[in-house]
Amino acid sequence: MTSVTAYAAPSEAAPLEKTVIERRELGPHDVLIDVAFAGICHSDIHTVRGDWGPRQYPLAPGHEIAGTVAAVGSEVTRHAVGDRVGVGCMVNSCGECRACLRGEEQFCSAGAVFTYGSVDRDGTVTQGGYSEQVVVTETFVVRIPDAIPLDRAAPLLCAGITTYSPLKRWGVGPGSRVAVIGFGGLGHMGVQIAHALGAEVTVLSQTLGKKDDGLRLGADHYHATSDPATFRELRGAFDVILNTVSAEIDLGAHLRLLDVGGTMVCVGLPPAPLPVALNALIGGNRALAGSSIGGIRETQEMLDFCAEHGIAAEIEVIPASEINTAYERVLASDVRYRFVIDAATFA
Amino acid sequence: MTSVTAYAAPSEAAPLEKTVIERRELGPHDVLIDVAFAGICHSDIHTVRGDWGPRQYPLAPGHEIAGTVAAVGSEVTRHAVGDRVGVGCMVNSCGECRACLRGEEQFCSAGAVFTYGSVDRDGTVTQGGYSEQVVVTETFVVRIPDAIPLDRAAPLLCAGITTYSPLKRWGVGPGSRVAVIGFGGLGHMGVQIAHALGAEVTVLSQTLGKKDDGLRLGADHYHATSDPATFRELRGAFDVILNTVSAEIDLGAHLRLLDVGGTMVCVGLPPAPLPVALNALIGGNRALAGSSIGGIRETQEMLDFCAEHGIAAEIEVIPASEINTAYERVLASDVRYRFVIDAATFA
Repeated sequence: MTSVTAYAAPSEAAPLEKTVIERRELGPHDVLIDVAFAGICHSDIHTVRGDWGPRQYPLAPGHEIAGTVAAVGSEVTRHAVGDRVGVGCMVNSCGECRACLRGEEQFCSAGAVFTYGSVDRDGTVTQGGYSEQVVVTETFVVRIPDAIPLDRAAPLLCAGITTYSPLKRWGVGPGSRVAVIGFGGLGHMGVQIAHALGAEVTVLSQTLGKKDDGLRLGADHYHATSDPATFRELRGAFDVILNTVSAEIDLGAHLRLLDVGGTMVCVGLPPAPLPVALNALIGGNRALAGSSIGGIRETQEMLDFCAEHGIAAEIEVIPASEINTAYERVLASDVRYRFVIDAATFA
Repeated sequence: MTSVTAYAAPSEAAPLEKTVIERRELGPHDVLIDVAFAGICHSDIHTVRGDWGPRQYPLAPGHEIAGTVAAVGSEVTRHAVGDRVGVGCMVNSCGECRACLRGEEQFCSAGAVFTYGSVDRDGTVTQGGYSEQVVVTETFVVRIPDAIPLDRAAPLLCAGITTYSPLKRWGVGPGSRVAVIGFGGLGHMGVQIAHALGAEVTVLSQTLGKKDDGLRLGADHYHATSDPATFRELRGAFDVILNTVSAEIDLGAHLRLLDVGGTMVCVGLPPAPLPVALNALIGGNRALAGSSIGGIRETQEMLDFCAEHGIAAEIEVIPASEINTAYERVLASDVRYRFVIDAATFA
């Protein structure tokens, strides 16, 4: 075991603080990564606060990890010392079930091992990327293309794949009419990716406050959902709606913005079930879908796509000492569009 | 105008009774059809009872019409006197909008004209198939293949296309694992069609009361949803679930019967919005979809498919004098599986 400095929550109620955690010795298929940057995802906050169930503490979150390979196990073939690499939401899975064989490790029938707060296959509890180093089995480590700076790459490991996967799954391409609900960490990636896929992109945000950014990042149109005219004017206007907000919205009103045969795909989880009037689906052959991150192979594909199209996250880099302040700002939606922790400040 | 005998509701509260209605003179593109059989669809009851909004009375329902061509207008090219033909839920549309041009006339942007109780493009209110004859524009008349008896063909015009269209849309084919919720007029068609498409078919019915029929008509498995074990044993077991019931069901429990990436498609409209826990969708990349009948071109395709595979509705033929009794039995789910009125008894 190797001790590394990390920032971890000592309990669900206390702020994150500097601490020391253990990393396992390198196994034959393991990769030791010097973390360079770690993105702050809203999920980090939910998880350390216990919103999604009890956890073991101290808990170091972080599943948007970018860095360089420091060492590799004896049988590692995919990565070499010095490679620029990333780790996202998962660090292990059974590798043998139908989902794993299809490359959808997030749906592993034995349960995917998530990057922090999850029981790994060796029985230890995983610790995330708010730390100097991580040890990850090579199949869950992806390459970060040279075209993407590591700091701006980090959020792609969650926000990038979470929006890329459903846009691909639901056939977005040249000529598609796509709306993105919400223009935050996920939404600003969804807009860039949908635009790069060739779609005509519309942002549906509560206000027009971020309109300039939206248009700069590839949106063709930007509408406020606080304006009832939006729902009249855009009725039937979209083939795909990517819903990135986890707040409760009026699903029926938004579903009617879909053309015949369109799909709204949700990637944010509201705290309670939402009422769905099935006539909004039946009266237009529409679908309401969900999407959960993406598999490792598709994560690599997304990174390569982003590099090819010059896409990355818009970020605000912070030192580790500002993590707790950043959490408050994330909860207040006061970030454009992702905080990224500079791992040089962990020590 | 031509007077024909029909069975119509004189008001939303009164039973249907024999009456006389008017049919328009044949226009150049019209087809006059001698009705042979008219199916009784649950929608007929909802509509004449005013459940779906106020109507003009007397109202003759019936949108599962099978008969023979008695006369054609001067410019009709698709049909000839003596042809075996059918008419389903629609009798007109604008023909020019995107939906019409795609062959999805049910979503005509000017509003599809439904077979009864709908304002036609000439301003008259349509009257349905519980009558001796109907006059329909040729493009909304489909051919009934010789292999299908007219009485068993009639219900295909609604129950057949309503189940065929979503099964095709969601990619059901050889190897698909399909569940059909509900084994009534729609469900018994869904089972036959999914089986003929090559799927492994499971019926999910409240009880095992109709199990023998289900297996005879092509189901491989038949489970009772009243048994909690069903939901444990079949978790993740299906690629597509066709939900034919309009009663409220526990969507979350049923959605979890879908494998990763699966779709539940609903064709029955519950009276109120249903709560949907989005984690049942997100935690499996699942979709909840709706489907509304099908276009005219696809209705013809469905009839040809049914003929090729020896599929038709299971019916109970009744004289017109038993329509009101049949309505009570439909409401009590006491029919295997569709009532069809013998139009020879209208006169």
